[in-house]
Amino acid sequence: MTRPMPTTAPPGRPPGTTSTRPHILAAARELFAERGYEQTTIRSLAARARVDPATVMHHFPTKEDLLGHALELPIDPAVLVRDLGREPGTEGETLVRRVLALWEDPDTRLQLTALLRIAVSHETAAAAIRGLFTRELLGPLAERLDGPDAQMRAGLVATQIAGLALLRFIIRVEPVATADHDILVQHVGANLQRYITAGDGHSHDGTQAP
Amino acid sequence: MTRPMPTTAPPGRPPGTTSTRPHILAAARELFAERGYEQTTIRSLAARARVDPATVMHHFPTKEDLLGHALELPIDPAVLVRDLGREPGTEGETLVRRVLALWEDPDTRLQLTALLRIAVSHETAAAAIRGLFTRELLGPLAERLDGPDAQMRAGLVATQIAGLALLRFIIRVEPVATADHDILVQHVGANLQRYITAGDGHSHDGTQAP
Repeated sequence: MTRPMPTTAPPGRPPGTTSTRPHILAAARELFAERGYEQTTIRSLAARARVDPATVMHHFPTKEDLLGHALELPIDPAVLVRDLGREPGTEGETLVRRVLALWEDPDTRLQLTALLRIAVSHETAAAAIRGLFTRELLGPLAERLDGPDAQMRAGLVATQIAGLALLRFIIRVEPVATADHDILVQHVGANLQRYITAGDGHSHDGTQAP
Repeated sequence: MTRPMPTTAPPGRPPGTTSTRPHILAAARELFAERGYEQTTIRSLAARARVDPATVMHHFPTKEDLLGHALELPIDPAVLVRDLGREPGTEGETLVRRVLALWEDPDTRLQLTALLRIAVSHETAAAAIRGLFTRELLGPLAERLDGPDAQMRAGLVATQIAGLALLRFIIRVEPVATADHDILVQHVGANLQRYITAGDGHSHDGTQAP
């Protein structure tokens, strides 16, 4: 930051200016990621966005409202599930490859990490991210799964993907953190496939095959 | 808090008092969980622990040192892996049952959530938790796995367990959040079993069985 930051808005930017809203949201994402949801105040946000606190309140009456709008996935969920069923039996491996490719991008990784940081920092933030997650990722995935319990199996796919991302990219636990893509695609892909195809080796009525 | 909190130590508690060190560590855990690692200062910690900052520095010369000692698993890893191989083929389901039982305990859940919150908040914290995780959980689990790549497979088991805990207990994504234990034990257990037994349906030389 090379110029001093005013604590109130520069004059002449009316609340209705079309660029104000995304500008405030961008500042909110920065502060939520840096300080967490709790520590971010409307005042600090206004200072970062270089607008008046009243302008923030005009666009986002509550901090919860702001959070809901500030959160957006840095990825296009369609990219993850597109043509997933084209080669039946390979969906799991394809998903792992796509997830790894997304997380390997430094910008995407930073944004997804910020999202997780916000999610674990506060219940209100967790609720907003829960909604985002369900709407943008689980829903589209569940729609592509055949068989019973598609929502549950989509949710279980998400647990494996989330845990892989957490240990590989955020906490960086070895040997998962530096494992070759092919190793992860093979092992994790096979397990995702089991969720996706309603579990080979298990019947669908809740009892376990021998 | 019913009594005012002094900003310096009550007189008469010398740095060497045997109860001082765990007392400081308990306060550190509280503050790390509440504010994150970054926002916790030696001064704020001394105030919380009701000791002098110099006493904190005497026991823990750096904040990193403090972090390393403040972090401890609120669970006994031996409980997770004890007699795991007694009934071969059921290790995965047993692990899921034990993990769910641990997380259902409110105190344990709070402490594990705090640990994760610290882990994602700062690189230094992540490094400390990485070490803890590897030493206390992955090591003992890998020792119990037969076959090649035991460390890798133990790591993959951990990704699935971590992701399940994250989505069920912290972000609380439905339907995983309220799923019956039996459903989770069945589906997730089967996938853990695949990691544990070096992958049924896959050969061990890196190629995939048809």
